[in-house]
Amino acid sequence: MFQKNAWYVAATPDEIDGKPLGRKICNEQIVFYRGPDGKPVALDDYCPHRGAPLSLGKVESGKLICGYHGLGMGSEGKAVSMPGQRVSGFPCVQSYPVEERYGFIWVWPGDKDKADPELIHKLHWADNPDWAYGGGLYHFNCDYRFVIDNLMDLTHETYLHPTSIGQREIEEVPPTSRMENGSAITSRFMHNIMAPPFWKAALRGNNLKDDVPVDRWQICRFFPPSHVMIDVGVAHAGHGGFEADPAHKVSSVVVDFITPETETSTWYFWGMARNFNARDQGLTDQITSNLSKVFLEDKEMLERQQVNVERTRRPLLSLNIDGGGMHARKIIDQLVSEEQSTS
Amino acid sequence: MFQKNAWYVAATPDEIDGKPLGRKICNEQIVFYRGPDGKPVALDDYCPHRGAPLSLGKVESGKLICGYHGLGMGSEGKAVSMPGQRVSGFPCVQSYPVEERYGFIWVWPGDKDKADPELIHKLHWADNPDWAYGGGLYHFNCDYRFVIDNLMDLTHETYLHPTSIGQREIEEVPPTSRMENGSAITSRFMHNIMAPPFWKAALRGNNLKDDVPVDRWQICRFFPPSHVMIDVGVAHAGHGGFEADPAHKVSSVVVDFITPETETSTWYFWGMARNFNARDQGLTDQITSNLSKVFLEDKEMLERQQVNVERTRRPLLSLNIDGGGMHARKIIDQLVSEEQSTS
Amino acid sequence: MFQKNAWYVAATPDEIDGKPLGRKICNEQIVFYRGPDGKPVALDDYCPHRGAPLSLGKVESGKLICGYHGLGMGSEGKAVSMPGQRVSGFPCVQSYPVEERYGFIWVWPGDKDKADPELIHKLHWADNPDWAYGGGLYHFNCDYRFVIDNLMDLTHETYLHPTSIGQREIEEVPPTSRMENGSAITSRFMHNIMAPPFWKAALRGNNLKDDVPVDRWQICRFFPPSHVMIDVGVAHAGHGGFEADPAHKVSSVVVDFITPETETSTWYFWGMARNFNARDQGLTDQITSNLSKVFLEDKEMLERQQVNVERTRRPLLSLNIDGGGMHARKIIDQLVSEEQSTS
Repeated sequence: MFQKNAWYVAATPDEIDGKPLGRKICNEQIVFYRGPDGKPVALDDYCPHRGAPLSLGKVESGKLICGYHGLGMGSEGKAVSMPGQRVSGFPCVQSYPVEERYGFIWVWPGDKDKADPELIHKLHWADNPDWAYGGGLYHFNCDYRFVIDNLMDLTHETYLHPTSIGQREIEEVPPTSRMENGSAITSRFMHNIMAPPFWKAALRGNNLKDDVPVDRWQICRFFPPSHVMIDVGVAHAGHGGFEADPAHKVSSVVVDFITPETETSTWYFWGMARNFNARDQGLTDQITSNLSKVFLEDKEMLERQQVNVERTRRPLLSLNIDGGGMHARKIIDQLVSEEQSTS
Repeated sequence: MFQKNAWYVAATPDEIDGKPLGRKICNEQIVFYRGPDGKPVALDDYCPHRGAPLSLGKVESGKLICGYHGLGMGSEGKAVSMPGQRVSGFPCVQSYPVEERYGFIWVWPGDKDKADPELIHKLHWADNPDWAYGGGLYHFNCDYRFVIDNLMDLTHETYLHPTSIGQREIEEVPPTSRMENGSAITSRFMHNIMAPPFWKAALRGNNLKDDVPVDRWQICRFFPPSHVMIDVGVAHAGHGGFEADPAHKVSSVVVDFITPETETSTWYFWGMARNFNARDQGLTDQITSNLSKVFLEDKEMLERQQVNVERTRRPLLSLNIDGGGMHARKIIDQLVSEEQSTS
Repeated sequence: MFQKNAWYVAATPDEIDGKPLGRKICNEQIVFYRGPDGKPVALDDYCPHRGAPLSLGKVESGKLICGYHGLGMGSEGKAVSMPGQRVSGFPCVQSYPVEERYGFIWVWPGDKDKADPELIHKLHWADNPDWAYGGGLYHFNCDYRFVIDNLMDLTHETYLHPTSIGQREIEEVPPTSRMENGSAITSRFMHNIMAPPFWKAALRGNNLKDDVPVDRWQICRFFPPSHVMIDVGVAHAGHGGFEADPAHKVSSVVVDFITPETETSTWYFWGMARNFNARDQGLTDQITSNLSKVFLEDKEMLERQQVNVERTRRPLLSLNIDGGGMHARKIIDQLVSEEQSTS
């Protein structure tokens, strides 16, 4: 239950530097590598000769060489060379539209003709020297929609992440959710509270006092097919919160690309973009390390939720706090339904 | 193929002290914890909000708090609290009759209305200071009836446990089996033999000579749904065997609660109760350690038997030595059949 | 998709010395052991009493004793003893024709009446003191025919084994394939090339110069049901190659018994027989160690090929280089088809 005609984050650039990468995206088994011009290529990970995975091969001058018998693949999915063989009659393998943008490799697993690079989700902070980004990749054995639900309802931070970003005050302020231009938004604003450990560290990282009351915000935005961007931060209380002058706040974006591997497994690209102290790589590393622990706490819960929901097949409750996830699922349902009716 | 309307041992008390325990019993996925009065509670391990396993949560003042979004469950399976939510309309989850008795947590996975605590199997030695008990828990990947067969035919000790409790003389004395009051009994009495290593150690543990001939007994009793209690011991030869004066013997009960997890997997609670030198905790620990090795030898054999029987689906032979297990299976068949015809 | 009426290598003699061995061959779960005369016996690995795997038992004076309750099996699959039991009425288990020959244990998993030991594949070099043999056993999770394809097309050495036996010149010389007397043959002859590392070491092992041009040969022969014997070697260039006088060459046979475990898994007995410096055990050990690394490189490729082919179910290409494997598959298809039409 996911869109095929959409741009998904499939990898980070370092994963395809110098060698091919095999990865399943939306049930498509794909090999990613850099072609002759250095641009990423995405093909069915299947050698048309004897079915070997091309990702076990190597890349020579932008040509993907099968590691079994040396068949060379061109970036269109056509065999272009093989020692002692004429390859012009070989069957082609599928190629996938793929782009490198904003520090990610994006793939379009569906109908090639509809793949317009302009549809790639815009990241205003990427390629901007005033912003820094750090992140990682986790594999979750669960439906990607459980990850979206998780990120569109941060109430869970109180319970699942009590030592980092969770605090009692989160659940005391009800969130508000709405749909807007085909995206779903859930916001929560907390006033005059003490920052939890993760944000105390961030305040110190921006040379701000961490022992005074703050205003805290969480503005979660779901964008199809499965991205969640969350404006998060704290400002010294009374300075305007989210709108406060940069001198009084630490403000960042939790970046979540939640790419289905199969119906019940997910590649979760997580990270944080920030525009304070952006040139401090040590701070980036520290924040990334802290985040990696937070998102690992989600992994066990979501994988066990998957097992439990498969076991019972009961409908889930949808409370006020689940509004953001509900909106997101409505958007997904609508887009998948449209996609299926036109194919 | 097991009774649902019966009391099974599900856990030991230490397993639910201070935290919830998730465990599948007779195909029911259950969370066990201590309620407000300290008494055990057993619920479907499923949060009615979003399906998270409640066993990943925590217990606060006897209320089970879901670890995902903080829903609080009462001991009847009804949500009783959730931050910022009215929970009165939430669907309930199933609760199971559960009792703490004799040092075990007992659960009734079937029809709640039929769960009478008086039906819990009596353990005459429990809560008696003249007796000591030590035991453990193993998970076996086999049908629980293979464990019952194993314990109702101790001929296997000669082959599977040759360095501890096995000896040639076991197979030289044919056992006798019978049914009695809805239980199955198999007995074997050996006279004027040398004790095997396990029993030599027990004799020394009771300050008795271990290098003189003994009389040895094994009286296996199966009680539904799946408990096996075995009177075992040795007495210096000629003093009356099982009936000998305590001054001349070491006498104990092998305690086996064989609780189905699924049709093909089993929670095996094993242990030994003894009424010699009962206050010697070091002796209890030593006996428990020795037993843990013995029952581990059964694990590989029974799990491989399960695989082999599934592979061939041939009928098993039933010899004289298998009489106890056959009686036990007849009792089980009868009870399951009755249960199914009335439900 | 394999012959049942054929002799397969099932084990090496050391594997059944002193203890039974459980191994699945062509979907038959078999226990191998040495009977009263020291000759190998092969039976269904199933105790007729309670279904325990007989391979968990032990062998006493050539009688297989079940490790659970002591049932003794005779080499015809008939129970011959059990403590305190008459066994004459016990059901028999299947026995399989089995032979020890040429340093291997051979089994016939099909129709017993057709098992003629004269049909065992002849190994001219075995039991010949002028020849030495060293080998090993790997378990591959793939269809055995992928291993045959691999060995009947050594083009892959260039890509999969570049640091040992692979070299560019292999793919510059097209192989020739043909069928002959129910076997398939693929040959490749390379002239005036430098030897790759594996063969340089072999030249030194035969006290020959390794830094001069050589002629190299590869003559792969497939014999049903699934054996591949490959004449391989190098001779100093210009001395006649394969036909050169022993003083100028290193010549050996790659020995491959590719025994199906199931349709998608394989016991791969690999090794090398050589007739130079045959009494040098250190050389045998070194060659065997080098080969073990080579064949491990095939394992990952073939297991991933299996997954990929199962995923896509597309037909494989058959190029000139695949001729040997194609002939082998034709022979297999023919024999399996004959077998099925007469059964």
